[in-house]
Amino acid sequence: MSGQEIEQLIRLLGRLPGFGPRSARRVALYLLREPQSRLAPLARAMERAGEAIRTCSSCGNLDTVDPCHICADPLRDHALVCVVETVGDLWALERAGVHRGVYQVLGGTLSPLAGTGPEDLNIAPLFARLEAGQVREVILALGATVEGATTLHWLMDRLAPYTAPQGTVTVSRVAQGVPMGGALDVLDDGTLAAALGARRPA
Amino acid sequence: MSGQEIEQLIRLLGRLPGFGPRSARRVALYLLREPQSRLAPLARAMERAGEAIRTCSSCGNLDTVDPCHICADPLRDHALVCVVETVGDLWALERAGVHRGVYQVLGGTLSPLAGTGPEDLNIAPLFARLEAGQVREVILALGATVEGATTLHWLMDRLAPYTAPQGTVTVSRVAQGVPMGGALDVLDDGTLAAALGARRPA
Repeated sequence: MSGQEIEQLIRLLGRLPGFGPRSARRVALYLLREPQSRLAPLARAMERAGEAIRTCSSCGNLDTVDPCHICADPLRDHALVCVVETVGDLWALERAGVHRGVYQVLGGTLSPLAGTGPEDLNIAPLFARLEAGQVREVILALGATVEGATTLHWLMDRLAPYTAPQGTVTVSRVAQGVPMGGALDVLDDGTLAAALGARRPA
Repeated sequence: MSGQEIEQLIRLLGRLPGFGPRSARRVALYLLREPQSRLAPLARAMERAGEAIRTCSSCGNLDTVDPCHICADPLRDHALVCVVETVGDLWALERAGVHRGVYQVLGGTLSPLAGTGPEDLNIAPLFARLEAGQVREVILALGATVEGATTLHWLMDRLAPYTAPQGTVTVSRVAQGVPMGGALDVLDDGTLAAALGARRPA
C-alpha cells in the first residue's frame, strides 16, 4: 500500500504481544509522522538494549550485567530463593518490593502439550546451591494455572530430599485467594474455592 | 531496575499510542528474550522506514516515494479528490478500496482550543488544482466530531466559489448513519438522529 519499508515495519509491529493489524498501523503512523523525534530514538534504544542485554548465568534474569544486579547485591538474602516462571514475574515482584531474597527464573513451565520438559527449565543453578548448603528457604511463586501446578508438584518432588527430615530447607508456595481490590462476584470458581479453603481466623 | 538501556527502551515504548507501563514492559520483555530474531529486525525495520519515509508534496500522504504511489497512478481519477484529516484515514479508505480518486490529507482539523488554524492545514495543493480547473468533485470525508464539523463548514465556505452557479465543481460529504454490523441500541443519540434524519425510501 505505501512502500515496502513501511509495510515491513507494520508487519513486524503486528507480531508484538497485544498487537493486531490496527494497532500496528496506529503505532507505525505515530512513529512515521515524526521520524526524527519518535522513530529514531526508539530504534536507537532498541539497538542499545539489544547490545547491552545479558541473561544472568545465576538466576536467569535479564539485565545489562551478569550476574544481574539482584544476584550481585550483598544486601539481599541469598539463602532465600524465589522460583518464578518468567523474567516478567521477577520484575513484577521487584516492582512490588515484596521479596528481599534472590530468584530462580525457570524460563517456562512443564507442559507435555507444548513439549516442554524438565530439561528445558533453568533450574540447575538452584540445585547446585542447594547441594552447597547455601539455601535456607525456597518460595515457589508459580502461576495458578495447570502448567504452574504441574511444575510446582514436580519441583516439590525434586526438593523433597533437601527438606525435613533429611534436610533443613523450607519449601513454601505463594498463597491463593481473593486479589486485593477484587470483588467476590467477579472471581472465578477456582479462586473462590481456594480462598475459602485457605480461610484463616479473622 | 535492570540496566539503563532496558529502562530507556521501556520508557520509550510506554510513550507509544495505546501503551501503558505494563504493555511497554511486556513488549520489551518479548523483544529482549530473543534479541537476534525479534529486537534486531524491528530496530532495522524502523531505521529503514525512517530513512525511506517521504511526505507526498501533492496530497500529504506518507509513502516512500514523492509523489506518493496514489498521486502517481495514472489509472486513478485525479479529478475526484477526497479530503481526509489524517494519513490514517487515507489508509483506512485505501484498505476498504472504496475510493478510486486521489486524496488531500489536511494533517489535522480546525481547533481553536488546540490552537490549530487554517494555516496549519495542508490544503493549498487542492486549491492550486481547483484554480487550474483539474478538479471535478471534492468529497469531504471528515470525522463526525466537533472539530471535523468545524473544518467541514470552513472548507465548504472556501470551496463555494468553485461550485455552481459560479463554478462547476461538485462538493459532497460522506454520509452519517448506522455503521455496518451496528445494533441500534448501542449507538449514541447523535448517530441515531443523523441516521433517522437522512432516511431514504426502502
